[in-house]
Amino acid sequence: MSLFLHVVPVTEAVATIRHLAQLQETEHVPVGEAFHRVLASDVRADVDIPGFTRSVVDGYAVRAADTTGAGDAIPAMFTSLGKIAMGATTDHPISAAECMYVPTGGILPEGADAVVMIEQTELFGDQVLIKKPVAHGENVLFYNEDFARGEIVLTSGRQISAQDIGVLAAVGCVNVPVTRMPRIGIISTGNELVAINKIPRAGQVRDVNTYIVSAYVRDHSCVPITYGVIRDDRETFRAALSRAIRECDAVIISGGSSKDDRDMAAAVIAEQGEVLVHGVAIAPGKPTIIGRCGTVPVLGLPGHPASAFVVLSVIGRHLLDGMTGVTGAAVISVPATLALNVPSAKGREDYVRVSLKDGIATPLFGKSGLLNTLVRSDGVIRVPAESEGLETGTTVEVYLW
Amino acid sequence: MSLFLHVVPVTEAVATIRHLAQLQETEHVPVGEAFHRVLASDVRADVDIPGFTRSVVDGYAVRAADTTGAGDAIPAMFTSLGKIAMGATTDHPISAAECMYVPTGGILPEGADAVVMIEQTELFGDQVLIKKPVAHGENVLFYNEDFARGEIVLTSGRQISAQDIGVLAAVGCVNVPVTRMPRIGIISTGNELVAINKIPRAGQVRDVNTYIVSAYVRDHSCVPITYGVIRDDRETFRAALSRAIRECDAVIISGGSSKDDRDMAAAVIAEQGEVLVHGVAIAPGKPTIIGRCGTVPVLGLPGHPASAFVVLSVIGRHLLDGMTGVTGAAVISVPATLALNVPSAKGREDYVRVSLKDGIATPLFGKSGLLNTLVRSDGVIRVPAESEGLETGTTVEVYLW
Repeated sequence: MSLFLHVVPVTEAVATIRHLAQLQETEHVPVGEAFHRVLASDVRADVDIPGFTRSVVDGYAVRAADTTGAGDAIPAMFTSLGKIAMGATTDHPISAAECMYVPTGGILPEGADAVVMIEQTELFGDQVLIKKPVAHGENVLFYNEDFARGEIVLTSGRQISAQDIGVLAAVGCVNVPVTRMPRIGIISTGNELVAINKIPRAGQVRDVNTYIVSAYVRDHSCVPITYGVIRDDRETFRAALSRAIRECDAVIISGGSSKDDRDMAAAVIAEQGEVLVHGVAIAPGKPTIIGRCGTVPVLGLPGHPASAFVVLSVIGRHLLDGMTGVTGAAVISVPATLALNVPSAKGREDYVRVSLKDGIATPLFGKSGLLNTLVRSDGVIRVPAESEGLETGTTVEVYLW
Repeated sequence: MSLFLHVVPVTEAVATIRHLAQLQETEHVPVGEAFHRVLASDVRADVDIPGFTRSVVDGYAVRAADTTGAGDAIPAMFTSLGKIAMGATTDHPISAAECMYVPTGGILPEGADAVVMIEQTELFGDQVLIKKPVAHGENVLFYNEDFARGEIVLTSGRQISAQDIGVLAAVGCVNVPVTRMPRIGIISTGNELVAINKIPRAGQVRDVNTYIVSAYVRDHSCVPITYGVIRDDRETFRAALSRAIRECDAVIISGGSSKDDRDMAAAVIAEQGEVLVHGVAIAPGKPTIIGRCGTVPVLGLPGHPASAFVVLSVIGRHLLDGMTGVTGAAVISVPATLALNVPSAKGREDYVRVSLKDGIATPLFGKSGLLNTLVRSDGVIRVPAESEGLETGTTVEVYLW
């Protein structure tokens, strides 16, 4: 093997890992457990919503046209036809200058097309004084105005939000089709690693990656399966990788991915499958590995936790998203003005941590290997491979963590 | 009781609910389970990180000053003192024009202050040709450059992110101090409500709020406890509220909060405690109730799911955040340019759903009671109470969902 990594562009790395990522099968879970899962198919309204024209306030159902010109000084006078109880209908249609009291959520009588809030009326025997005009449709939700029966209300690939849960409940989607949560095997390698409850001695660092990768994976609707710290011993690593491949849908290894002769991740992946990428033109994160063992994708992250996290966000995310089927707004980005010059090497995509305030993105000083800038930043900006840097005042896209 | 709600400004409603919200006690959970929980106290580094000056690449440790002027054409020549094994130290300090091979993560020898990546070198017997100059500190992390022992690394009140989990692991925070997850009782009221697995008949709607509120509560590091749909029957409601108050740290009721005589939420809360607010100058969401029964805060949401959700985001969030102790970035907002005029009534805070694209916020047409705009929007903009509307081209803050 060569001493040097053969680096590929980020786009190629992303395309490679997307290609390996197999969409998981669909399963159904009760809507109460569907929050944060990924919708596996489009969901349609099973009924018209609302199923009847209803008031959204307490007040008087009227024909909107009859209220034209009504005001505090000269109220419009309406004849009250009585009250409609909650959930009840009425045989009395509303005609000119007639009104009927409707509670919030009540069914509008025939003929009415708006409701005047009770606060804007005054009762005067069986007459109602209306002090404010209403427009057609004001304070009502018309029959199927929200969703029409058969209409697609949520599309496949959404990571289900609280609002989505509301819509699923509204359309009677009691058991929600979601993609099965992929099991992601997580292996940390390196003789320098010690358990997090140990005090590191000289040359040692704590095993941060098992924890940071697990949390990231969980946040992306996947299940982390941890295999602990594996020493730089080929036999032990081989055994751990074999087991993870058998038990998981994808494997994420951290460490053991650079070109030093003690680093063996690529070699062992090659024994059990194929290394497709070893080296990506990205900073931080160059010694990234993408491979597969049988049909199981294997991603090798750099050992440095901060670099590992950037590679997870930029490349690993596509593995997880491809398996869960998430599309669209998985990453929130916002435009901002760059506060400082950011130099960069041509041919390499740089991901620079920034803090974001009032539309200004300020790059954080400090090396890419630091965890402290990772937690003090709001997100990252990307310096494209073809650029030698970005100047102060440039509009950049900030990808929020 | 008056026919009309006595509305208070949103700021007053928020202050009232903040005052009721009691910060939950601290408990400790293993770091692997701390994701998305709320940090209950500041966390400090227990050791210096890194505990030694280390290389972040595979390459040659050098004195940076000795590489000045090195280039492809005229490389600088260094004498190799051999290799440093992973985790090992060396007695050989680096002097002028000397170098030593260090693997990624390895301990830098005394005297060296930078590492030249192996890709930028060539081995020539025991001489190493260096083809690119390095700056002081390049490719190394200095002793305690990331975190110094005793330094605060994460502050109380963060909702713990994946990166935070990494930092907690790095500083040996094996058991993480988090606030206990408050138990939030959820009661839906209304004779018009049917279970979500039923087909609503005329006048009926499905019980969306139990589900949407549960998911929102869960997303805010709280535990939802649902009490199902309670009919508009004072005795049943009284019993459900009593039970929820005994079993939970706060109670969220939806429906039964408007001024119609069938609506009884405020009356029953008053029997068992005190109603502090009934009516908020907010649209949608005016008939909001804030009360307490003993020390248990009670929030009454409008029955319309879309309105209930807006009130949850604007007011309810402060109840949950006050109990979990979340501070800071709980809501992400971004500035954007308004694409259309937004009229509003003076004296009322309007929350208008918008879609956000390329820095342009486009208000979504449709009434505030619609669920469809809730899931099609990216967030809301706020029209302040003192404003009669916002004009096209105004810079607005979009609060992302």
